[in-house]
Amino acid sequence: MYIGIDLGGTNIAAGIVDDNVKLMYKSSVPTQKERHYSAIIKDMAELVKTIVADSGCDMSDIRAIGIGCPGTIDNSRGMVVYSNNIKMDHVPLVDEFRKYIDVPLNVENDANAAAYGEYIANGNRVNSYVFMTLGTGIGGGIIINGKIYRGFNCAGAEIGHSSIVIDGKTCTCGKKGCLEAYASVTALIEQTAEKMDECPDSMMNEWTKKYGKVSGRTAFECAKAGDKAAIEVKDRYIRYIAEGVSNMINIFQPDMFVIGGGISNEGDELLIPIKEFVYENDYNKYMPKAEIKIAELFNDAGIVGAAMAAVDKA
Amino acid sequence: MYIGIDLGGTNIAAGIVDDNVKLMYKSSVPTQKERHYSAIIKDMAELVKTIVADSGCDMSDIRAIGIGCPGTIDNSRGMVVYSNNIKMDHVPLVDEFRKYIDVPLNVENDANAAAYGEYIANGNRVNSYVFMTLGTGIGGGIIINGKIYRGFNCAGAEIGHSSIVIDGKTCTCGKKGCLEAYASVTALIEQTAEKMDECPDSMMNEWTKKYGKVSGRTAFECAKAGDKAAIEVKDRYIRYIAEGVSNMINIFQPDMFVIGGGISNEGDELLIPIKEFVYENDYNKYMPKAEIKIAELFNDAGIVGAAMAAVDKA
Repeated sequence: MYIGIDLGGTNIAAGIVDDNVKLMYKSSVPTQKERHYSAIIKDMAELVKTIVADSGCDMSDIRAIGIGCPGTIDNSRGMVVYSNNIKMDHVPLVDEFRKYIDVPLNVENDANAAAYGEYIANGNRVNSYVFMTLGTGIGGGIIINGKIYRGFNCAGAEIGHSSIVIDGKTCTCGKKGCLEAYASVTALIEQTAEKMDECPDSMMNEWTKKYGKVSGRTAFECAKAGDKAAIEVKDRYIRYIAEGVSNMINIFQPDMFVIGGGISNEGDELLIPIKEFVYENDYNKYMPKAEIKIAELFNDAGIVGAAMAAVDKA
Repeated sequence: MYIGIDLGGTNIAAGIVDDNVKLMYKSSVPTQKERHYSAIIKDMAELVKTIVADSGCDMSDIRAIGIGCPGTIDNSRGMVVYSNNIKMDHVPLVDEFRKYIDVPLNVENDANAAAYGEYIANGNRVNSYVFMTLGTGIGGGIIINGKIYRGFNCAGAEIGHSSIVIDGKTCTCGKKGCLEAYASVTALIEQTAEKMDECPDSMMNEWTKKYGKVSGRTAFECAKAGDKAAIEVKDRYIRYIAEGVSNMINIFQPDMFVIGGGISNEGDELLIPIKEFVYENDYNKYMPKAEIKIAELFNDAGIVGAAMAAVDKA
């Protein structure tokens, strides 16, 4: 048995993963991210003890624990070099956690962990694999020959911070024109709100009144109902994602490219036009095409991936 | 001893590389690329025999021969799947060449070969390495853990065909906004010619009359002489390159990023502003920075890299 912890800005989620990479049991507690990191780490350890007890396991059954954490992670030293979301600056997360539970431990960037979880869920069988998760930002994960590719400084795979619009919108990272500034859910919400201002008669305005706020679903739902302005927002947003996927396919030609994050629930609505654009614009015209698909584990990818990355490290 | 062959659109260049990866002897013959591929392959074999004889070696000293060839190359089958430059469509290049000289053989995409040559020239010591060559087009090569990364279908590492301008200029590949359409030498020549039309008083017009045509050097030379229009062309062109390098750094965070191709002769003129932009826009703000440098082997990279890739295959 292994444990994966997905340390998010809102919740700490943890789960027990068996030898067949099946998530057996999971639970979560609020992160309360404004607290000092030591309180958060203590809660992470408590949560692990709780799920072990509640699931009827014993701590001696647990062979490794992996933590997925946002930010720049030095996996070799078990350190959170910097996380903006949960305030941590050079925190030796693994050493701090070990004060509570002393088993083989690993900490991984959360997008890398989710990428690895999806990779394993997809059969752990391909040599090259790229994962992109669309959320508040855009996370990326690259698996080459079965190993998480981190770059020489553990700061790689930031595919959301490759630009698609030179001199374009300023990204949260400070660079202009990043994919994240156009294809994250945050960007979709901005694009939706702009169109609503432009088209006060759009169904999106009513929808927003009904549900209280503009969300990543607003344009997709109203587009399904035939609203012209919503269709425009949705189509252009998908085009941004497709531009990013197309770039990564031309660079990596991976066996498999997986799209995750909440918006991936849209399924074929998202996948079909992305595939259409990518295959039409593929530099590779003579060899087999990279497989493009929607994530399978969804919210559990981070837990499973963190656990399995810890197995590899152990 | 090993032999590398760089099969280009203009010349076939071949050289003998020793065990210390030193290029001992080289020579070339015109490709005459409009001929049937069988005549070109025969000339490649003749050239190998000539350099072996002229250098005082014996064919029995040659332990492997590697060929670098433009286009989509299936290295595992020794096949040129498709090359537009030298007309080849599913040509079993290795089998055809073996009819003349039967030693361990390998064929590699020419940019991959050049990348590998530069990688070895740079000490063969880093785990992650990205090479970009700026010429008629933009070639890319990625080395991970000492191995050429080809993608699952041997069509990867096309970093010139990631876009930096959504809906931008149509690239020769058919996609819009590719880095190649802005940062290749072909693009620089177009940008120079446009500016010359716009600014008939620019020194670039005189320069072109003197040297007979607009070239990749026109803007750089006239910028050095203080011509304002030329400085604008040069600065914007370097900005395009920097955008591409910045994207690749955020994706790969490689130990080393190397810029090659004729324009890399400009040295610090090119390198300093690229580094400035890239480090300023680096998503990685807390870990060591990727090293960015100009290629060392220049025209010999293809020969050396093709030879050494054949050693690895043998």
